[in-house]
Amino acid sequence: MAILTWLHNAYGRDLIDGIRAALPDEDIREWPEAGNPDDIDICIVFRMPPGFLKPFRNLKLMSATGAGIDHYLLDPDFPRGIRMVRVVDHDFAARMADYVLAWTLFHHRDLAHFLAAQARHDWAYKIMRSASDVRVGVMGLGQMGRLAAERLAAIGYDTAAWSRSPHEVPSVTCFHGAGGLDDFLGRTEILVNLLPLTHETRGILGAATFARMPAGGVVISAARGGHLVEADLVAALQAGTLRAATIDAFPTEPLPADSPLWEVPNLYVTPHCSSTASLQTIVDTFTGNVRRFRDGQPLLNEVDTIAGY
Amino acid sequence: MAILTWLHNAYGRDLIDGIRAALPDEDIREWPEAGNPDDIDICIVFRMPPGFLKPFRNLKLMSATGAGIDHYLLDPDFPRGIRMVRVVDHDFAARMADYVLAWTLFHHRDLAHFLAAQARHDWAYKIMRSASDVRVGVMGLGQMGRLAAERLAAIGYDTAAWSRSPHEVPSVTCFHGAGGLDDFLGRTEILVNLLPLTHETRGILGAATFARMPAGGVVISAARGGHLVEADLVAALQAGTLRAATIDAFPTEPLPADSPLWEVPNLYVTPHCSSTASLQTIVDTFTGNVRRFRDGQPLLNEVDTIAGY
Ligand SMILES: NC(=O)c1ccc[n+]([C@@H]2O[C@H](COP(=O)([O-])OP(=O)(O)OC[C@H]3O[C@@H](n4cnc5c(N)ncnc54)[C@H](OP(=O)(O)O)[C@@H]3O)[C@@H](O)[C@H]2O)c1
Ligand SMILES: NC(=O)c1ccc[n+]([C@@H]2O[C@H](COP(=O)([O-])OP(=O)(O)OC[C@H]3O[C@@H](n4cnc5c(N)ncnc54)[C@H](OP(=O)(O)O)[C@@H]3O)[C@@H](O)[C@H]2O)c1
Repeated sequence: MAILTWLHNAYGRDLIDGIRAALPDEDIREWPEAGNPDDIDICIVFRMPPGFLKPFRNLKLMSATGAGIDHYLLDPDFPRGIRMVRVVDHDFAARMADYVLAWTLFHHRDLAHFLAAQARHDWAYKIMRSASDVRVGVMGLGQMGRLAAERLAAIGYDTAAWSRSPHEVPSVTCFHGAGGLDDFLGRTEILVNLLPLTHETRGILGAATFARMPAGGVVISAARGGHLVEADLVAALQAGTLRAATIDAFPTEPLPADSPLWEVPNLYVTPHCSSTASLQTIVDTFTGNVRRFRDGQPLLNEVDTIAGY
Repeated sequence: MAILTWLHNAYGRDLIDGIRAALPDEDIREWPEAGNPDDIDICIVFRMPPGFLKPFRNLKLMSATGAGIDHYLLDPDFPRGIRMVRVVDHDFAARMADYVLAWTLFHHRDLAHFLAAQARHDWAYKIMRSASDVRVGVMGLGQMGRLAAERLAAIGYDTAAWSRSPHEVPSVTCFHGAGGLDDFLGRTEILVNLLPLTHETRGILGAATFARMPAGGVVISAARGGHLVEADLVAALQAGTLRAATIDAFPTEPLPADSPLWEVPNLYVTPHCSSTASLQTIVDTFTGNVRRFRDGQPLLNEVDTIAGY
């Protein structure tokens, strides 16, 4: 029994030191010093080349270092039958909610109008609608989406959410499934994407979705680049189908300096900064799950590798 | 008994028509057709030249059309002994809270950094603190300040407030009086001003206040231009005592096109747009108070003309 870590390419020594300190009795190995591959039954990996896990025939549990796990499952050699956990907690979700609120309010209160007016020395008064008259819709009611929806509702937005299975959230109008999508989109002026990337959700931020929203809506995506159909977004912004968008995750990251997206009017690009798990969150969540696994207890934040989230 | 209105300079016919419809039995006169000045016992006035009220010797009740009443009381001929009410309600305060939240999140999440980075095609990643680590302080716990403070707390900010008399607000650390100001400012990174303008609060957004905040703080003022010492604000921004400010109300409005304030780095100018009473709010609040006054019932939103708010 040994734990393999591959973290050095993304995190400093603090993370591995924190994991070691919390699990003093575990045999913890740092890639590429894996030792005998048959010893490894748990691993925590940030990003891995395809086939990386293949030699570890006794692997039983794998942990991501963050919330998204889509890139691991894309590996055709991803081992069948292992269990998978991911890293999420309240602090991680709270900082995501901060991002969602910041950009929802930016668009609702049209801060771009006031910034542009100031640049012209123009006292360009404009009356604002109340949050209670603005219909925001959150796609995804998971760790991230639920807190964002709750906080949007707490500050008065007319808030709805859409998930795969039915949910009830106080002060949030809940829709679900393919059958609920039309009604959800039809009432949503500001659409917030917090879905996981699966074969069902890939490309969901495309022309069909934008066309079902009321004209002149806004899209905020803080989930995955694979949700976005870039050309459709640009076309919808140019046609005015959408009035504005803020996108935090792109098919290629960092967004290349020569990408045309940087200069699309009313498109706000942010550098995958919406939220990240703190080192403390990663250490606590991962080492907590290692202990639960060793003790045969239920794991936290376990992923359904068939559903893909 | 008659009601004098002076609204035509700021509002269209809808407002006066709404008031007439709600008070069909009242004798309602529109300036300059005041008729016999001795008939007038109630008035609603948007803005008035000094001495305007002097001829109305039987005036007993005056209503403002909005939340601020400082400019009426500055008139040296303001009649002693009349009662005064103002117009505030939940919708009016809610839109103010939207403004406060929008700019608090703008500064906390450093949207200016990301807007500037996008203009350079620069993927300038930056880790963000959680709202729960950001200390926001609201000056004024009245109709506007209380809802803003409650909503800042609801989305996780470490929120405090400062008022003249002691208050208790769930999840908000309350300070009061001159004795509480040092502790309040000493812990406040983002200062939100929602005080009324009185002889005690005039010039409160000046060097002495900025110096008592932690270095690199932010000021957001949505109250009155008379709170602001413009030169002190500019100096504090230039010296880095303050990292940024958003100001909605200025000593002279509209801010002249040649004002140097438009171009002070990290100063965001908004055109007195934070909130306004809707026509419905003005009609309902004013006509409700007329009925209460005629029936000898307690008035809503009555002003203490000695304290000045
Ligand atoms: N940009 C960043 O910095 C950043 C940071 C953190 C997270 N993220 C991303 O944010 C997203 C959300 O993360 P999370 O932790 O909240 O995920 P999660 O907990 O797995 O939540 C998934 C939610 O999406 C719903 N869902 C899944 N498939 C669906 C479908 N086909 N149709 C409708 N709803 C569907 C689920 O519905 P049920 O409830 O019915 O199962 C659930 O409510 C992920 O894409 C993650 O990668 C990005
Ligand atoms: N820019 C805009 O578009 C806009 C729109 C609406 C309102 N406003 C402005 O917003 C401000 C707040 O309005 P409001 O309706 O909330 O006022 P309010 O209900 O009269 O609230 C006054 C608050 O300030 C406190 N206060 C008064 N004098 C003080 C002093 N010397 N020291 C400490 N605290 C003091 C009061 O303390 P106590 O509770 O102890 O009495 C009370 O909590 C006003 O200046 C108004 O003109 C601006």
